Amino acid sequence: MRVLALLDGTLADPEAPLLRADDLSVMRGDGVFETILVADRKPRELGPHLDRLERSARLLEMRLPERAAWERAVRTVIDNWPWDTDREMALKLVCSRGVDGGDGTPSAFAMGMQIGPETIRKRRDGVSVVTLDRGFAPDLMERAPWLLLSAKTLSYAVNMAAMREAESRGADEVIFVATDGTVLEGPTSNVVLAKGRTLYTTPPSTGILRGTTQGAVFRAAEEAGWQTRVETFSAEELLRADGLWLASSVRLLTQVHTVDGTRIPADADLHAELSKLYESNY
Amino acid sequence: MRVLALLDGTLADPEAPLLRADDLSVMRGDGVFETILVADRKPRELGPHLDRLERSARLLEMRLPERAAWERAVRTVIDNWPWDTDREMALKLVCSRGVDGGDGTPSAFAMGMQIGPETIRKRRDGVSVVTLDRGFAPDLMERAPWLLLSAKTLSYAVNMAAMREAESRGADEVIFVATDGTVLEGPTSNVVLAKGRTLYTTPPSTGILRGTTQGAVFRAAEEAGWQTRVETFSAEELLRADGLWLASSVRLLTQVHTVDGTRIPADADLHAELSKLYESNY
Repeated sequence: MRVLALLDGTLADPEAPLLRADDLSVMRGDGVFETILVADRKPRELGPHLDRLERSARLLEMRLPERAAWERAVRTVIDNWPWDTDREMALKLVCSRGVDGGDGTPSAFAMGMQIGPETIRKRRDGVSVVTLDRGFAPDLMERAPWLLLSAKTLSYAVNMAAMREAESRGADEVIFVATDGTVLEGPTSNVVLAKGRTLYTTPPSTGILRGTTQGAVFRAAEEAGWQTRVETFSAEELLRADGLWLASSVRLLTQVHTVDGTRIPADADLHAELSKLYESNY
Repeated sequence: MRVLALLDGTLADPEAPLLRADDLSVMRGDGVFETILVADRKPRELGPHLDRLERSARLLEMRLPERAAWERAVRTVIDNWPWDTDREMALKLVCSRGVDGGDGTPSAFAMGMQIGPETIRKRRDGVSVVTLDRGFAPDLMERAPWLLLSAKTLSYAVNMAAMREAESRGADEVIFVATDGTVLEGPTSNVVLAKGRTLYTTPPSTGILRGTTQGAVFRAAEEAGWQTRVETFSAEELLRADGLWLASSVRLLTQVHTVDGTRIPADADLHAELSKLYESNY
């Protein structure tokens, strides 16, 4: 099931071609995107997602349709989703730099997609992860902005390849690690770690994407009396934590039970507590 | 002027939509491509380009249409190009992993595109380059194949961002440098350096793309008595060389006259000699 809307708020046929062959999304992965959870007709963290989309577009120095147009497209998708059979959807906002050699008019759309059984399984059963070298140092972003480290671009081939590498090692997910051993992020998630009543996540200054779901979890946890710390930690800390999660918009707070083949504490009560805190935002 | 062919050898309207919104080229930059020069109806280095396309697809673990289908599409584009007005074209071969959640049937096409005035100017007048940190060590490829370093993927947002960085510094092109100072490649070219009667280029083991044009230049130069060496060299060597070029399929052997604002030897006779050697392949 897919529902496709254009930025003028009209519906389009998701099975019909939409992009020209020379669109820069097709030819160069030259654009930005966001994936948003919509549950019971309500998009979660829409504001932070649109903020991040705008930030990514700024980093790519590309034009982006105005916020009202995105909100209109989101509304069209939501209004046309079959809520009687699916109470959730993954909503993608996609925008490219437009046609190669064109006038820079962006190509943009919003697409609602069904949430697959794999995602449901990961939410319910937790995941095993492998740590993979991301190949760069945690201070690279500042010295090399042309590498677009903190932008959510359409150039995601490496993120997909990392997921295949995890699969080939019998794992569900990946945690990228910098050359000095600093934990970075997952290919499509942020890392959240608990030690006692303190939650940790990696700072965006390392070149990772600022997490919308991680942000929502931290916000609710702080209100409930947890301490939160945004600071770097090393891959060894993953094994020493009282709890470890990947936070992503669609998989939510996914508990990690295994790191590089080693079982780690995966307390069901702690997971339920944090999940409930996250849900309290909505 | 654009001429678009599908892999069954039929023409398609280049101004009509071809790809679905959920094609993985659009959503993830998840695919491979090649750009080939066609001059006077003859595609240059078609075999090496198709070899590299196949290699890229293997690294991405994706299905690729068979070689005969690519050759058929290439033929269709060439047969329909307006050779009376344009004696050259840039021919792109593009292939994605297909539709997200689909059966893996690749989406593929060949597109002939006009060669712009910027390219003509660079060929004729040479280029200024800036060196930019690529952020990784030259031994990364072997230890982290999931980073797809030597694959020519559709995820080219960083390559495009690097070109914008060059432009913002008043330069024409970029040479990427590894964290240890080793010269890597341009965002869409290989580096070729002359010292006396020896040509140098960076080895593919550093994670760069194996150059088709560089390969053709070396082949012809060897036959004409030049020595060639495929070995690493540092960014300082760029300033000490007797000649420096960027080799790319469409820009050909482009002479570099300025590196990071410093003029370097750009001998017109040497450039003419190497260009002639390259052309002798065809």
